[in-house]
Formats: sequence, C-alpha cells, structure tokens
Amino acid sequence: MPWKAIGIFDSGVGGLTVLKEIIKVLPQEDTIYLGDTARVPYGTKSPETVTRYSLEIASFLVKRDIKLLVVACNTASAASLEALTERLPIPVVGVIEPGARRAVATTRTGKVGVIGTEGTIRSSAYAKAIKRLNPEVEVITRACPLFVPLAEEGWTDNEVARLTARTYLAGLREQGVDTIVLGCTHYPLLKRVIGETVGEDVRLVDSAEETARTVADILRGRDLLRPDGEQGNHHFFVTDVPAGFIRVGNRFIGGRLGDVYQVSLDAEKERP
Amino acid sequence: MPWKAIGIFDSGVGGLTVLKEIIKVLPQEDTIYLGDTARVPYGTKSPETVTRYSLEIASFLVKRDIKLLVVACNTASAASLEALTERLPIPVVGVIEPGARRAVATTRTGKVGVIGTEGTIRSSAYAKAIKRLNPEVEVITRACPLFVPLAEEGWTDNEVARLTARTYLAGLREQGVDTIVLGCTHYPLLKRVIGETVGEDVRLVDSAEETARTVADILRGRDLLRPDGEQGNHHFFVTDVPAGFIRVGNRFIGGRLGDVYQVSLDAEKERP
Repeated sequence: MPWKAIGIFDSGVGGLTVLKEIIKVLPQEDTIYLGDTARVPYGTKSPETVTRYSLEIASFLVKRDIKLLVVACNTASAASLEALTERLPIPVVGVIEPGARRAVATTRTGKVGVIGTEGTIRSSAYAKAIKRLNPEVEVITRACPLFVPLAEEGWTDNEVARLTARTYLAGLREQGVDTIVLGCTHYPLLKRVIGETVGEDVRLVDSAEETARTVADILRGRDLLRPDGEQGNHHFFVTDVPAGFIRVGNRFIGGRLGDVYQVSLDAEKERP
Repeated sequence: MPWKAIGIFDSGVGGLTVLKEIIKVLPQEDTIYLGDTARVPYGTKSPETVTRYSLEIASFLVKRDIKLLVVACNTASAASLEALTERLPIPVVGVIEPGARRAVATTRTGKVGVIGTEGTIRSSAYAKAIKRLNPEVEVITRACPLFVPLAEEGWTDNEVARLTARTYLAGLREQGVDTIVLGCTHYPLLKRVIGETVGEDVRLVDSAEETARTVADILRGRDLLRPDGEQGNHHFFVTDVPAGFIRVGNRFIGGRLGDVYQVSLDAEKERP
C-alpha cells in the first residue's frame, strides 16, 4: 500500500512557510499543496465566503486521497476549521490552535500580542483559543495589513519594512507583551524586522513551526507516519496561472518549487 | 421614459475614485456601481480569469438597464475591454485609453511614465495605447504593488507612504519623464505624496478625471445625457459583505456612500 500524502491549502503562497516547516520536520512525507490564487486574499472576505472556498478546496484534496489536511491559512482556520472538521473523515489541523498553545506556554508576564490580517484579528480566533487554554492571559491584538504585500514584494529587510513594523508594533511593546504570535503565514518572512522592532526580550511565536510539530504528533499518534529514509514528493496546484505563485513561492520556500499545475475548482462547487 | 443609469464596476473600492469624478462632471446622472469584493484584487490574476469575471459583472449590470458601462479598473480594462465591447449592445469605456490620450497630449519631452499594479504593467496596456496614439513617445513603466494596500490602509500622507513612493519612483525621475500616468484607480489618493516625490515639473495624469470626461463626451454625442437640474441617485452593489467596502469607500468617495447591497453573481456564470 502506498503511503498517503499530507494535504495543505492556503489562499495563496503564504502557506508555503507552513509547508517548509513540515518538510523540515517530516522530510519523508509526500505533500499536496493547493494555493487558491484566483481568489486570494481571504483576509478581506467574509467568514461565509471563506468557508465556502475552504470546503471546495478540501473536496478537491480529499479526492486525491490525503491522510491529513492542514489549513495553512489563518483566515481560513479562523472561519472554517469547525465546518471542515465536521465534514471530513480525516484529521484537520489549523494554524491557530498550535500558535495559541505555544504562546500560552511561553508567556511569563501573561500578556500576549497577536498580529495578523484584518480578517484574522476581527475574528478574535487567537484571543478565543488563548483564553480557552488560559483565561488569565491578556491578549492584545494588532492588524498589520501591509505586512502581506511587503512580504510578497520581497521588501522584508528595507527601511519601508522597518518603518511599517515600528508603526504597527510600537503600541504592543508599550503595553508590556513578552510574547507575540505571528498570526499570518506571511509573517515569518518578516521575522527579523519584527524581532528587531520589538526587541530581544519579546519572544516571537511562529505558527508555521508549531503547526508542523502538531502535524507530526497527530500522524505519529495514529501510526500514519511514513518511515524515514526516502525523500517525499511535493505537488503544487493553483487556481490561477502559476507564474506569480512560482516567482513569489520560490522566495517563500527558500528554494525551487517543483512543477505547479493550474486547476479549476468548479467541479467542487455545491450546485443549488 | 425614465433616464437610464451609468453602470460602473471595479474589483473593489478603487473604482470609486472614477465614480467620484463622474459625479463631479455629471451630477444629474444616476449610477449603479458594482465592486467585486469577493474576488478582489484583480491585479494578481490572469487575463482569462479577469475577463470571465468582467463578463459576469457586465451581465449583471446590463440586466439593470444601464446606458453605458465604465470599466473603472485598470486590470479589467487591460484584460477585458475588447471582449466586453464585442458582446455588449451599449458603449463601454475603460480607464486606459482616456489616460493614454491625456498623457500624449501633455508630454513635452516625449517621455511618459506609467505606474500601476503588476497586472496592469505586465499587460503593457498603457504602453500599447500610448504608442498607438504616437509611436514616438517613449514609455517607462513601474509596478508599485504597495500603493494599493497603502491607500486602503489610509496611509496616504505618512512617512511609510513617502518612503515607498521614493523607492518606486526615483528611477522614473532619473530617466527624464515629464508626465506620469496614475494607472491604477487607487493612486489618486496618493496623488499628493507622488507629486511631492517626483517634483512639481512632472505632470500627473489622473485616469479617473479623464475617464469621466470621456463618459460625458460619449453620452453627449449620443444625446443620452440626462438634463441638468436634479441630483442623480447612486446605487452600490458588492459581492462580499459590505462592511469593509463601506469603511474604505467613504474615504475614497470623500463622503458617505448610500446603501450598499451584497449580491451574488452566480446567475451570471456561464454553465459548461
């Protein structure tokens, strides 16, 4: 019996930071990634719309016989994790719960900052997840809408990035947080600038790293890990022409993506 | 017989800068605006995808009995104007041709700069339109992907905006352009910062203003102008929940939008 792959999706390239961490932790696993580039970004869209899109993508990936689904998109995790978990016969891992867990374990002052897109922040998904784990922890949030276009433009280490980070993050520091959750899959690319801005004494929680660890734990627990040894294969699908995804994606994955195929999700849409 | 309305669409709020200019020139006209907020932005999507979306929106607006369609989106104008003009029984006005015409009329040095989203710049639509009008004019282009999120964030007059403008525009100035086309409907909001950056001697061509003039000319030529006197009514439709559109849109229109309704374009999709 061939080993099944791990399915991963995001609205675009951002989820590649999560894929990168999964490959680091589980180099032997095959993966199938779908970037919904025809409909990116999700951060400005309503939870209803994002959930509809997520279910379409899950249907596409489940047909390719995956063993676990990673929702590598904070907006989709916030909006759709419940709907996906209810409907799918396989484990579903979002990026919010793992980040929240690490933040609660890390903070000493009991004050955690969360940064993300407007959609993620408005959903209060991290704040709710953190409060569920420890109601005593105070959560201070800040939407940073310009971080995504900065990461995609490759402006991750210039003066515009530093000034933008200062503008967004000054308030968080002043309010005494000692831990900040990077609540958007694009933000690991800005980790250095964010770290310099908030100072060494503030710990950054990278949801991508935590999510990869959670994936490994679940597969191990269910005895679904592929044995070590071989290198996994990685397949990429996008919903718009691949050129932009490949250009930005190579930077995100820190290497070269393999072949990227354009697909239509029309067959996955629910007809009224 | 009631006077028909002018139909306008954009991928999101950007086209409101065009609507604003149309209202300034033709205050008596009724308008119907559709912002495709569920699928914004178009700038990163392929011409095929954008054309499919544009045809769906045109079908929606034509059913509401408009007398003229304004494609108030540079990406959609570049990708879809031909397809729309072929299929629709009414005049269709894009934002590229009017901007190109004004640029050719304005330049003295024969060197015109064009700034826009990556999609618009990659399409070479402005360069082609300018060359059609005068093959002697040299066109120097620059994609400025961060200008859209800056305008939507309301960061139109701060240090991040100025630094971003300097980073994008220094090259254009050095290459001796005396005219720059604001080739994206969001950019009029950054007009002041852009103007300060390139200096007083460089003229900025605002496609929104030129498009409004073209609309007035066509309606006058066909005797379709509503007589002066009354104030026109303005209706707004969006394809995702209206909250974000209203918040950003009020800033774009420089006042208060009326009621904004969410609609589905599913009935306009071509079934295979």
